Amino acid sequence: MLVSALLTSVGINSGLCVLFFVLYSILRKQPSYYEVYVPRLLAEGNSKRRSRFNLERLLPSPGWITKAWKLSEEDILSSSGLDALVFMRIITFSLKVFTFAGIIGIFILLPVNSIGTQLHEIDFADLSNNSLDVFTISNVKSGSKWLWIHFSAVYIVTIFVCCLLYFEYRYISSKRIAYFYSSKPQPHQFTILVRSIPVSFGSGVSESVESFFKEFHPTTYLSHVVVHRTNKLRSLIHESKKLYKSLLHLQSGPSHQKYRRIGLFGKRVDLVDHYEKKLEGIEQNVRLEQSDVSLAQETRAAFVSFKSRYGAAVACHLQQSINPTHWVTEQAPEPDDVYWPFFSSSFLRKWISKLVVVLACILLTILFLIPVLVVQGLTNLSQLEIMFPFLKSILTITFVSQVITGYLPSLILQLFLKIVPPIMEFLSSIQGYISHSDIEKSACNKVLWFTIWNIFFATVFSGSVLSQVSIFLDPKNIPGKLAVSVPAQASFFIAYVVTSGWTSTSSDLFRIIPLICSLATRCFKSANDELEVPSIPYHRDIPRVLFFGLLGITYFFLAPLILPFLLVYLCLAYIIFLNQFTNVYMPKYETAGKFWPIVHNSMIFSLVLMHAIAIGIFTLKKLSIASTLIFPLPVLTLLFNEYCRKRFLPNFVAYPAEVLLKKDRQEENDPAMAEFFNHLVTAYEDPALMPIQYSATTDSLNSPLLSSN
Amino acid sequence: MLVSALLTSVGINSGLCVLFFVLYSILRKQPSYYEVYVPRLLAEGNSKRRSRFNLERLLPSPGWITKAWKLSEEDILSSSGLDALVFMRIITFSLKVFTFAGIIGIFILLPVNSIGTQLHEIDFADLSNNSLDVFTISNVKSGSKWLWIHFSAVYIVTIFVCCLLYFEYRYISSKRIAYFYSSKPQPHQFTILVRSIPVSFGSGVSESVESFFKEFHPTTYLSHVVVHRTNKLRSLIHESKKLYKSLLHLQSGPSHQKYRRIGLFGKRVDLVDHYEKKLEGIEQNVRLEQSDVSLAQETRAAFVSFKSRYGAAVACHLQQSINPTHWVTEQAPEPDDVYWPFFSSSFLRKWISKLVVVLACILLTILFLIPVLVVQGLTNLSQLEIMFPFLKSILTITFVSQVITGYLPSLILQLFLKIVPPIMEFLSSIQGYISHSDIEKSACNKVLWFTIWNIFFATVFSGSVLSQVSIFLDPKNIPGKLAVSVPAQASFFIAYVVTSGWTSTSSDLFRIIPLICSLATRCFKSANDELEVPSIPYHRDIPRVLFFGLLGITYFFLAPLILPFLLVYLCLAYIIFLNQFTNVYMPKYETAGKFWPIVHNSMIFSLVLMHAIAIGIFTLKKLSIASTLIFPLPVLTLLFNEYCRKRFLPNFVAYPAEVLLKKDRQEENDPAMAEFFNHLVTAYEDPALMPIQYSATTDSLNSPLLSSN
Repeated sequence: MLVSALLTSVGINSGLCVLFFVLYSILRKQPSYYEVYVPRLLAEGNSKRRSRFNLERLLPSPGWITKAWKLSEEDILSSSGLDALVFMRIITFSLKVFTFAGIIGIFILLPVNSIGTQLHEIDFADLSNNSLDVFTISNVKSGSKWLWIHFSAVYIVTIFVCCLLYFEYRYISSKRIAYFYSSKPQPHQFTILVRSIPVSFGSGVSESVESFFKEFHPTTYLSHVVVHRTNKLRSLIHESKKLYKSLLHLQSGPSHQKYRRIGLFGKRVDLVDHYEKKLEGIEQNVRLEQSDVSLAQETRAAFVSFKSRYGAAVACHLQQSINPTHWVTEQAPEPDDVYWPFFSSSFLRKWISKLVVVLACILLTILFLIPVLVVQGLTNLSQLEIMFPFLKSILTITFVSQVITGYLPSLILQLFLKIVPPIMEFLSSIQGYISHSDIEKSACNKVLWFTIWNIFFATVFSGSVLSQVSIFLDPKNIPGKLAVSVPAQASFFIAYVVTSGWTSTSSDLFRIIPLICSLATRCFKSANDELEVPSIPYHRDIPRVLFFGLLGITYFFLAPLILPFLLVYLCLAYIIFLNQFTNVYMPKYETAGKFWPIVHNSMIFSLVLMHAIAIGIFTLKKLSIASTLIFPLPVLTLLFNEYCRKRFLPNFVAYPAEVLLKKDRQEENDPAMAEFFNHLVTAYEDPALMPIQYSATTDSLNSPLLSSN
Repeated sequence: MLVSALLTSVGINSGLCVLFFVLYSILRKQPSYYEVYVPRLLAEGNSKRRSRFNLERLLPSPGWITKAWKLSEEDILSSSGLDALVFMRIITFSLKVFTFAGIIGIFILLPVNSIGTQLHEIDFADLSNNSLDVFTISNVKSGSKWLWIHFSAVYIVTIFVCCLLYFEYRYISSKRIAYFYSSKPQPHQFTILVRSIPVSFGSGVSESVESFFKEFHPTTYLSHVVVHRTNKLRSLIHESKKLYKSLLHLQSGPSHQKYRRIGLFGKRVDLVDHYEKKLEGIEQNVRLEQSDVSLAQETRAAFVSFKSRYGAAVACHLQQSINPTHWVTEQAPEPDDVYWPFFSSSFLRKWISKLVVVLACILLTILFLIPVLVVQGLTNLSQLEIMFPFLKSILTITFVSQVITGYLPSLILQLFLKIVPPIMEFLSSIQGYISHSDIEKSACNKVLWFTIWNIFFATVFSGSVLSQVSIFLDPKNIPGKLAVSVPAQASFFIAYVVTSGWTSTSSDLFRIIPLICSLATRCFKSANDELEVPSIPYHRDIPRVLFFGLLGITYFFLAPLILPFLLVYLCLAYIIFLNQFTNVYMPKYETAGKFWPIVHNSMIFSLVLMHAIAIGIFTLKKLSIASTLIFPLPVLTLLFNEYCRKRFLPNFVAYPAEVLLKKDRQEENDPAMAEFFNHLVTAYEDPALMPIQYSATTDSLNSPLLSSN
């Protein structure tokens, strides 16, 4: 790829970014778009629908940027919780790393690379006509002493990243503890989920749970709620809710809509009446089903609540029964966070569904290679010309070929990548997790490894699955193969940062899809529709930032030119996500920083991958002393990781006894606790089992008993 | 190797076995050898030193065999504990497996192999002149339909072994729980070991422990004992004990020994007086040191005892402090089982010493390949002749060459292997384990993997470390390489079973080394020397049995001829170990079956290794459908293992809450518990800190205050 092709891509994407920024600056001030751009503020009642028109509303203004810039960590923590803070810390962490690496890369490594003569001499007269390879390590002469500078850079950056990782882990760990100390008593702190409850013949799950915990935890046991299978019920309730909504819509609409012929020659009926009867019928069904379910469809799982956090922790951490596959305990999620549909109570079923999901992930990975290969074909213009000879005439136009090699491949890839997070979320959800947060955490991991495998390795080795797998079955030669293939793809990944990073982040700001949805549904919506405030899809955004981190770390000494683009991306992401957290996203749950270990692991993996590439490169460049001297680095990095696992990870899995007991004692004499315990007893009841009542309320539109969610 | 060479080896070893059996049968009846052959009975007072002579004493008798045969599991359990029972179950488990595999192997596979014609046709006229390879799978024609019989055998035996493993794991797990229920209250059930205790400036470890546990475990905390560094003290005590012994020896000996010249021209001194003074001096030192140690040399570790087993378990399983590397808890070992010398209290030091030990193990493995290579050279006579031409004339004698190829290699190997268990035990002991049992368990694992690597793989691949490692760095080709190399070494391993298995087990019975030691020290011993009852070195014997299990499982379908020899070995081992448990070995500690998971893992590894070989063999034999159809087998085996890990392993790590609470409640109102708790408070005090007093007691020989052990 030539410098000019890169510049084309940068040009297109910068244009798009500016366009998105300008449009956003204007549209966000229009009251009719408040639902898209400031749903959170609307929901919180902080933004009123001003209808007064003024000219200022039509001019783009950067006010929101300075507003976002001024936000402090305390603001984010208080408004969006610790998870949002952790997310922002990922970005600031990456900013720190790549500013440091960028200074080394641009001011030291880049000049060294470009004065090399292995490939071409740099053509200063016409910079844009140089190949990008001139700026990579490939241009340094084999055996050159200059390579020791790259060697030192690898060491220095590794040490810098490890130090930063250590301090960051410590900081977030302490924040997590502080968050727990400052939190109000919450149901999930006092509750555990018990699965695989053995039931003796003739007695129910409920009696079994009660007798077990009354026997073995008599002083701390408070209450329990048995989990029911309510899939059918939930769909009934959903149906009645939909019916209720259209009924509301009908009643508020013009009166001629209220009558319609049933069938072709049927008589005109009062639709309102018709719907109301139908609704009553469904509600009857729901009530029947509810009494049925509460009697029969018990699963062998229950939420068990305790009188203290420590009591819950003790019951959770100790193996309860002689058979370790019975009475399997885990921490309960927040009541709103519970995800019921795919709940599996048996130990064996959960295990099998996990295996199935692993297989599905492997299958998905293999299938996904097809679009990746197509994309790869595009970067090799000559190959494309051979395959489609009729394109030859078009491809000779400079601009077209530049767009095709510089922009199109990563755009296609990005579109395909868009569907991965929802698929992974679905796979995680059938894996037997009980909460949205666990599902997203697991999906986050899946998406991350999927991205690394399918974007990084598939692009680098640009081959079929089998050839990829065969490379990993031959671990001795991995560094050598990486050293050959990774630098060759530098220009693709620089373009990828610009396309996928810059544009997709700005389109996040502009919220294209919600905007389209909002425009499309505007005519069908009634004013009574609830405003849906979205939550940030961590499983989409964290892997993306982390993947750019991986690209930055692996390429910083190979092709330092990637770093400025990466820094621009990170700055954009910083401002945009700060803005979105205050205006758009509402936290759906709070894991109190449990996403950080994923970040840490990904960074460690990036470092070790970078070391493997370095070993290969130095061998390839005939500087074998350097490649030998790199060897201790991955070992030390992994040892460092092992230390961090021991030092910090336990605090992210569970809270220590010290903290739990202190917190319990703080509240021992709090009179508000009695009320809290009353609430706790019913906190985990299935919303589908709550009584619902829509039909009678359709007459009085303003006070619907929306007890079901 | 020819059948005749194998028969030579079998002949020599059978002769040795018979010799050992006869000698044992005679010597065990001689009162002067009671210390060697029935030390346990002597120590328990069940065997009196009969001095009446009769002829029967000089005739070998098989009475001990029938006696051992009649022992039931209950007898072993009550006399030698659950660990001994588990050990015997390893042997009976192997017996069951190889009887089943043996029936298939000898009656189905062996005939199939020998009618094959790939290598040679079998020579029925002169059976002993056939190469052993005629009886292996190598003799079956490539692509032959007969190979499906081998294929089915692999499936059937795998299923059989897995079923047996499942039932065995379940049986031992239930035995473990039953053992716990029936056990008397023991100090280690109520105690945990806490390491990395943080100490605030100005306060001691003891105060720190007390305030922490009084704050966070107020209802269950009982007492604690801080661990001290007592290495120096222990060597002083050892010295004084030795001095005391020689003093006793002097006093009981003839009077002319009591005087000796000091120096060449020095005056004659009363040695008793001299020794007594020296002893008094040392004891003075000990007392000084003791008061010093108890004040200064505290380590940051302590044994903390609780009022209930459940209390101890709760404190042990919950992370105590915000910093997970502080207040690190683990279950305490039995007081007699504590191993003090290499105690390291800090988290980081323990971690580093573990790394060092891993490195040492790798180094040892590499160094050990030298003798293995020498042994390998011996099996290739032609190579030997080239290297040492002067041996040519000797090597042409049939008997010599048969001894060299059939017997010598495994004898040398076995002698070298003798030193491995003590080295591994030493390495485990510096790894930071706190008890003999943990050390032996860890050493058991180390010896097992060392044996598998250095005997199995080194022999099979018969190459340098580098070529071995390079094979494992190329995992795709492992089955292929195994398929070529493993059957080629069948005859070596058959000889190995005979030499190492038969002879070393019978020499265990005969106890050669203790016998020589006893003969050598007989003249120096006084009657007052304590009788030392040995304990069984599990880290030597378990890996040996397991390694034979691995050989049997991997070779049963390749060279079924190995199975009869293996069965003979197992029968020998069964009788001999039963006999030794009653007569010789006294249990030193009780892990209640914690060795079983090692056995289980080793069996699973053997199965998967066998599958890998099968895949390779069937590919080699051009029956690729069979090799594809084997693929699910290792996957299913590993899944089965994973299930067992979840289903049974937790019970081997810790006792479940249910069991602990039931046991606690049983004893709640037992009046004997008050006394037990009194004893518990001091149970973990360092024996080196107990007052000692030898000097004053030398006059009255019959009541020495042997308070120190």
